[in-house]
Amino acid sequence: MTDHSSTVLPNIPKSNYPKVVIIGAGFAGLKLARDLMNKPFQVILLDKNNYHQFQPLFYQVATAGLEPSAISFPLRKVFHKSTNVIFRMAEVDYFDQKIKRVYTNVGYLDYDHLVLAMGADTNYFGSKSIEAAASPMKSVSEALFIRNKIISNYERAINIEKAEDRKALMNVVIVGGGPTGVELAGAMADLRNNVLPKDYPELNFHNMKIVLIEAGPTLLAPMSKEAKDSALKYLLKLGVEVMLDTMVKNYDGKEVTLEGKAPIETHTLLWAAGIKPVQIGGLKDQHFAPNGRILVNEQSEIVDCPEVYALGDVSLMKTEDYPNGHPQVAQVALQQAKNLGFNLIQKQKGKGTKPFAYKDLGSMATVGRKLAVVDLPFIKFQGVMAWLTWLFVHLMAILGVKNKLFIFLDWSWNYLSFDPSLRLLIKPKIAKGKDPQELMEEQ
Amino acid sequence: MTDHSSTVLPNIPKSNYPKVVIIGAGFAGLKLARDLMNKPFQVILLDKNNYHQFQPLFYQVATAGLEPSAISFPLRKVFHKSTNVIFRMAEVDYFDQKIKRVYTNVGYLDYDHLVLAMGADTNYFGSKSIEAAASPMKSVSEALFIRNKIISNYERAINIEKAEDRKALMNVVIVGGGPTGVELAGAMADLRNNVLPKDYPELNFHNMKIVLIEAGPTLLAPMSKEAKDSALKYLLKLGVEVMLDTMVKNYDGKEVTLEGKAPIETHTLLWAAGIKPVQIGGLKDQHFAPNGRILVNEQSEIVDCPEVYALGDVSLMKTEDYPNGHPQVAQVALQQAKNLGFNLIQKQKGKGTKPFAYKDLGSMATVGRKLAVVDLPFIKFQGVMAWLTWLFVHLMAILGVKNKLFIFLDWSWNYLSFDPSLRLLIKPKIAKGKDPQELMEEQ
Repeated sequence: MTDHSSTVLPNIPKSNYPKVVIIGAGFAGLKLARDLMNKPFQVILLDKNNYHQFQPLFYQVATAGLEPSAISFPLRKVFHKSTNVIFRMAEVDYFDQKIKRVYTNVGYLDYDHLVLAMGADTNYFGSKSIEAAASPMKSVSEALFIRNKIISNYERAINIEKAEDRKALMNVVIVGGGPTGVELAGAMADLRNNVLPKDYPELNFHNMKIVLIEAGPTLLAPMSKEAKDSALKYLLKLGVEVMLDTMVKNYDGKEVTLEGKAPIETHTLLWAAGIKPVQIGGLKDQHFAPNGRILVNEQSEIVDCPEVYALGDVSLMKTEDYPNGHPQVAQVALQQAKNLGFNLIQKQKGKGTKPFAYKDLGSMATVGRKLAVVDLPFIKFQGVMAWLTWLFVHLMAILGVKNKLFIFLDWSWNYLSFDPSLRLLIKPKIAKGKDPQELMEEQ
Repeated sequence: MTDHSSTVLPNIPKSNYPKVVIIGAGFAGLKLARDLMNKPFQVILLDKNNYHQFQPLFYQVATAGLEPSAISFPLRKVFHKSTNVIFRMAEVDYFDQKIKRVYTNVGYLDYDHLVLAMGADTNYFGSKSIEAAASPMKSVSEALFIRNKIISNYERAINIEKAEDRKALMNVVIVGGGPTGVELAGAMADLRNNVLPKDYPELNFHNMKIVLIEAGPTLLAPMSKEAKDSALKYLLKLGVEVMLDTMVKNYDGKEVTLEGKAPIETHTLLWAAGIKPVQIGGLKDQHFAPNGRILVNEQSEIVDCPEVYALGDVSLMKTEDYPNGHPQVAQVALQQAKNLGFNLIQKQKGKGTKPFAYKDLGSMATVGRKLAVVDLPFIKFQGVMAWLTWLFVHLMAILGVKNKLFIFLDWSWNYLSFDPSLRLLIKPKIAKGKDPQELMEEQ
């Protein structure tokens, strides 16, 4: 392989407009690129995947409710009609703010404005053993991995004679009581209660535990008391064991040990306990908050780092209303991107910019196949209506008419048939002689 | 791991009925299991995957027209309402006809009747180098691998400066002029002509060759002259280079060498040139024809091997009408399975059996997005009507209402939008620290 860091990224058309390089095509990066589409900039959007991933529905891929393609959107397609946005599948190593250059695995490129929007990855809080054995869910691939792992566990459990020996394969433990953990737990409980017993009549699913572990005193910490209480009530009704105020000490792939409580046998520990910002080289220690987020001003500019911006999960903007920064959610990323897009266009016109002001549109989480909790600015509600609201909001947020249509049909089908019927253990074929399933089972 | 060959496969319910073990859940194995559903047998269906694969549409998965799940059907679901069919995901090593026992990677099991229906795998005719570098397409996983490889080639090509150096990444060579090769070539040409230029405006797709290589003098050898001629005409019109009477000598992953012709640069050699039966241990040399197919009588019984049968692609049944055996196609597999099912039930009742009689329902192949060739017993036709016939027949043959519905919608969408929009390079996440993409690129 050539050393790409020393060659310029080829095939970028010449342009007289200022060059905006955006790193990451998550909610923030994609929104900004779309807002700058056909505006007086040359926009180069970089991502390690060639598709945008709709994170709020990862848990449905993991629990066989949706196919990966339904919640992944090809980035090139978004910009078919654009004259100024260029996409490249690339991994960024670092940038050099002195010469305004970004170095990637496929070549370097120069920028006038650089936007860091790499998002966040799973945070194991320093535990190497948990990182090695637990399953994270911060990408479509990871969600698919979880699905394959769970199906493969049952296909294995059925060949084990004693019920006692099957426990660890059947139990699922989820760590983290945020929306991801709550939604995963609810969907897993639905699978156990309604789908798996039909597929594996030989196994007794009363023996299968689904445990949701949260270090704090409540589920869905930032939501209203009504939402927290209802979510807990719904999960208990679905048969999820909820353990609050519980710290995970360790996990070796077979047993989770807890602080002050009995250990739980499981081959499947789903880790949704925390996130940490993705980092690239180029910034100094002073640019980061202690939690690794990049400090930005109310224009999303990185202090002392001219023409470099950070958006969404990687950034930390302290404001009067949010002295510790905004929550790391899609809405913040989208709104920050929108504000930065506006400011860049204003500056280009020689007009004034405006500081970011977060408009909290509320939050919601679904629990199982027909309940949810919703906190809107002026109203809070729970139950079936909340669930319908959740469905509608997420369907509308999905990019593309086809994805919307197919997800709507999938959801309708699953709801009416009570049977996702996506329980396919499709082993990705990799290189010859290497069976990924074996690699997986080596874990 | 325990040595499973020495332990009995657990959790098989006790039954007083004769035990039929079926190896392979392709067209033949699945059909037989369905025909024996709720009949006086205990049926144990074994397959290395937990889903049935609809082979005729693999090429659409490879060319991003359909998702893997659309043409894969979970086997456990098929038997939800059965009282006597048990599925196990297992790989069979061998069987011992003296003690009537099958040995698998998850335990052994005893049979009264054993049915070999393992199907066929890719045949490289002894070339190790081609086997190492070419891409086969005999499973959904392999089809998905081809799709990822092709998309990844373009994502790489775009980062190469000189058009000359991109050729090998852009060209696609398909070997084998049977229906698979013809359908792949047509679908690839459609992608090149209509979809890829929109996604990669920087690349010049006039430089991309699609070459279809066939060793014999015609495409679609067993079909009518009208079908052959039309298929060739349609492919040429789509811009496919068709090379007949051409033998592939070698392939090193970058260049295909041909006998007596100039070599072709390509990173993508799709090998659809031949198949060979999948073998398991337990039979003697005398049971096989020189081409590796298992010799059976007109009852699908293996000669001198009581209560062991072979169906479909693995078998060779010489009859008056088919002195060299039947073609290795889905219809033969399905009809043989039907006949064996009937005979097993008849024998059980103490009634007479009947020999297999193949009813040729005709054959068809599609070329690109709106043309096909169809040979039915009493009529041959080509063109758009043939294409509509092809669509209808394949849609009806697909298992399950949901799969039918979703494929129908996918096809309608793709036809109307001229844009499959499934161009997602979703890298399967395997074990930590191992990036399958890297493995793939090492090839």
